[in-house]
Amino acid sequence: MSSCWERMAEVSRAHKSRICIGLDVDLEKLPGHLRSKPDPIYSFNCAVIEATVDLVCCYKPNMAFYEAEGLSGLQALARTVDYINGRVPVILDSKRGDIGNTAKKYARAAFEWLGADAVTVNPYLGLDSVAPFMEYRDKGIFVLCLTSNQGSEDFQLLPEEAPLYERVARKVLQWDKDKGCLGLVVGATHPSEVGRIRAIAGELPFLLPGIGAQGGGINCVTAAEVPQPDKLGVVVNASRSVIYAGAGKDFTVSVRAAAEELRRLVGGPVSD
Amino acid sequence: MSSCWERMAEVSRAHKSRICIGLDVDLEKLPGHLRSKPDPIYSFNCAVIEATVDLVCCYKPNMAFYEAEGLSGLQALARTVDYINGRVPVILDSKRGDIGNTAKKYARAAFEWLGADAVTVNPYLGLDSVAPFMEYRDKGIFVLCLTSNQGSEDFQLLPEEAPLYERVARKVLQWDKDKGCLGLVVGATHPSEVGRIRAIAGELPFLLPGIGAQGGGINCVTAAEVPQPDKLGVVVNASRSVIYAGAGKDFTVSVRAAAEELRRLVGGPVSD
Repeated sequence: MSSCWERMAEVSRAHKSRICIGLDVDLEKLPGHLRSKPDPIYSFNCAVIEATVDLVCCYKPNMAFYEAEGLSGLQALARTVDYINGRVPVILDSKRGDIGNTAKKYARAAFEWLGADAVTVNPYLGLDSVAPFMEYRDKGIFVLCLTSNQGSEDFQLLPEEAPLYERVARKVLQWDKDKGCLGLVVGATHPSEVGRIRAIAGELPFLLPGIGAQGGGINCVTAAEVPQPDKLGVVVNASRSVIYAGAGKDFTVSVRAAAEELRRLVGGPVSD
Repeated sequence: MSSCWERMAEVSRAHKSRICIGLDVDLEKLPGHLRSKPDPIYSFNCAVIEATVDLVCCYKPNMAFYEAEGLSGLQALARTVDYINGRVPVILDSKRGDIGNTAKKYARAAFEWLGADAVTVNPYLGLDSVAPFMEYRDKGIFVLCLTSNQGSEDFQLLPEEAPLYERVARKVLQWDKDKGCLGLVVGATHPSEVGRIRAIAGELPFLLPGIGAQGGGINCVTAAEVPQPDKLGVVVNASRSVIYAGAGKDFTVSVRAAAEELRRLVGGPVSD
């Protein structure tokens, strides 16, 4: 098993938590007093991390929010990963997907430049777009399976009798054989499908976004669980509903309360 | 019609060229004398651009190659787009795909920070992952349909009777209605499928990668053409086979020769 999944499971047990906080930082949504700081995104992230690091099993910055701010945004991302400094694993949510020769470069960016412990990848281009990430044996790779958004209906849920997301789940399980480094992104907005995916996907770890701002429910978490207490099983991500829970100078009080509430709702690892 | 497609068609007619050069710069493959320059990637790109700008209808930097070099790589990318300075359009090949709220940030990075004229996007997450790019009305968006790599067999070509790439082509044509800003990425390594996609996709512009290093053939170009001489129709991309055609101090002589040969092979716009 990937040492990334082991480490995530270990932190999950230690913090009695299966929650991941999405560090999706939008300059426009930052508390006013941080906007005048020299590196407001980094300052915000540090504050959120200090307020929640004992409550989470990992953090998940989405690369888009940093890219949108150009070089200074990406520098804030690199500094944020340094600041976390291995206390909990970091999933870089970048959903990259390209042909092998090129995917290798994305893997290098994620794991060598930014120092992520895990990534999300897009399966559309097939195995050779995922394989270069798997070359890094101590890392974890969550492959998009069924996403939490409306647009998941456009391709992932079609055709009804043999939907694409099921084919992705089957293929990813097959790719993972003797590797143990793959997992699936399964949106928490599709309760009936989550169980079907778990039935196909063996013990692959699931990353469940869509709880909170996107309206996903806790029943999806139960459907995604695995019985083995030593396995990672499920990681539940929430972003906006936690990081923007407060707005004033004491915003981290509300952020911590929102994280605590989510951790309580999701419950600890199955062995608890 | 998107002013990006119009502009690309105009340059295509002026340069009697339907070729795009992929600026996929790998530090290890640069001519030796450039490696000691303060910004070797940028220096290489400027030399390639000066040697070929009258032979192409656009350039296509793939973001992965720049991301792999961290901030300095991404700065070289931004400087390269500035250096091209609108002489020909720039397609940022980033294949992004994320939920609407996040895709908006990727669109901002591509169009506002990096100043691209067009992008490539991944369709896996459906319409709401593409729509934020379409908000920029003067830009072009190539949606991945059938890619040129081996892994295209994993999902895009399945199931055989109603393959995913056909569903993508149909959906993209529908999304494009009254917009005129979408196109498709269709790998030049699938000759029989290219014609099927053209039959489905009306007059959507096709970006054909896979010619050259990936072994794609010129018969795909013919299959991808549209009869209307004022329409963009097809843009053929080659990267490695052109930009690494030479290695010495005079490498741009070989680069220009490779670009001329490809332009001849592909032929000018249909109206020629």
